[in-house]
Amino acid sequence: MAFEDVFPEALKLALDNVRRIPTYGERGASRLVYNLLKLQPEERKLVVQALTEASEKLRPCQECYLLTDRDVCAICSDSRRSKKFLCVVEESQDAYSIERLERYRGVYHILQGRIAPLEGVSPQDLTIDRLLDRIEKNNVKEVIIATNPNAEGEATANYLMKLLKDRFPSVKVSRVSYGLQFGSLLEFVDELSLEKSFENRK
Amino acid sequence: MAFEDVFPEALKLALDNVRRIPTYGERGASRLVYNLLKLQPEERKLVVQALTEASEKLRPCQECYLLTDRDVCAICSDSRRSKKFLCVVEESQDAYSIERLERYRGVYHILQGRIAPLEGVSPQDLTIDRLLDRIEKNNVKEVIIATNPNAEGEATANYLMKLLKDRFPSVKVSRVSYGLQFGSLLEFVDELSLEKSFENRK
Repeated sequence: MAFEDVFPEALKLALDNVRRIPTYGERGASRLVYNLLKLQPEERKLVVQALTEASEKLRPCQECYLLTDRDVCAICSDSRRSKKFLCVVEESQDAYSIERLERYRGVYHILQGRIAPLEGVSPQDLTIDRLLDRIEKNNVKEVIIATNPNAEGEATANYLMKLLKDRFPSVKVSRVSYGLQFGSLLEFVDELSLEKSFENRK
Repeated sequence: MAFEDVFPEALKLALDNVRRIPTYGERGASRLVYNLLKLQPEERKLVVQALTEASEKLRPCQECYLLTDRDVCAICSDSRRSKKFLCVVEESQDAYSIERLERYRGVYHILQGRIAPLEGVSPQDLTIDRLLDRIEKNNVKEVIIATNPNAEGEATANYLMKLLKDRFPSVKVSRVSYGLQFGSLLEFVDELSLEKSFENRK
């Protein structure tokens, strides 16, 4: 009997389709599917229903591209928030991480990625045109660049900084600072962060 | 505005429910959900539909516990295969890996895990009683133990070896051999495998 006759079609389809998900290759798909199938039918149902609902209901905010369950997200819709402060992040989870602080009262802009030449991601692949539109239309006062603290995040931050200073000279452009992260040990901190922690000392 | 008012309910539910899946903690759930949501609606649908079908159709074979889309799997149902040869593995994916060779003509037995005292997994948590039943009922001639080549897999193999030799003295019990794996470099092979490759030289 050939392998194809023995391997359940539903299992093959699950594995093949999960591989459509970015970052999920053969191993990732295998781990997800087989582990999901370790659950009892009732729990399996809860999981797939939640995933189905999420994939049906969630989409990018028409204003800022934040993943949301409505056309315009709760943040952009909130009149108590100031559209004059715009925090630029790479992905939705970054914005939601900042929101957990319940400190920031401005709005966000999700780039949907970051500049990464080695991966073939250039500025045109991000939502930068829309960002420039919004800065103009909303008379934004300050743009806080909160891309990730790594090589690509820095490249993206530098690109945006130049672009914004050139396009909107009167707009304040800031970048979140580097320093020591709580829970790390001075002995094992990278040089850049250590230097910055001294530079930015108070 | 509180974070709970801003974070979409469907997103929260998806993240919380994915965490039910074994090995999926906060990071794993986040990675899965946010990456799934990077797909366009049509692709998202294909993925969640495949996962839904898999979770509805697949269950353990009543005979050998192999994950299948029927009550008794294609392998146990195949009269051309010999029930006198029984290959014991930890999980379904192991059996299917062996099946891909299209060489083995016996049947399988899925333990649904392996003995791992440090994780609280003892022999009673596996399908060993059923294994013993099957060996008796089917007059099995040889049991090939193909648990994983690691500490827990070895512990499980040794446990089964002792148990089977005691319970069924006339049944041949074998264990798949260690040796060099194709694609590795002799310089970086672990000592045990290197020793075994000499011991088992032909």
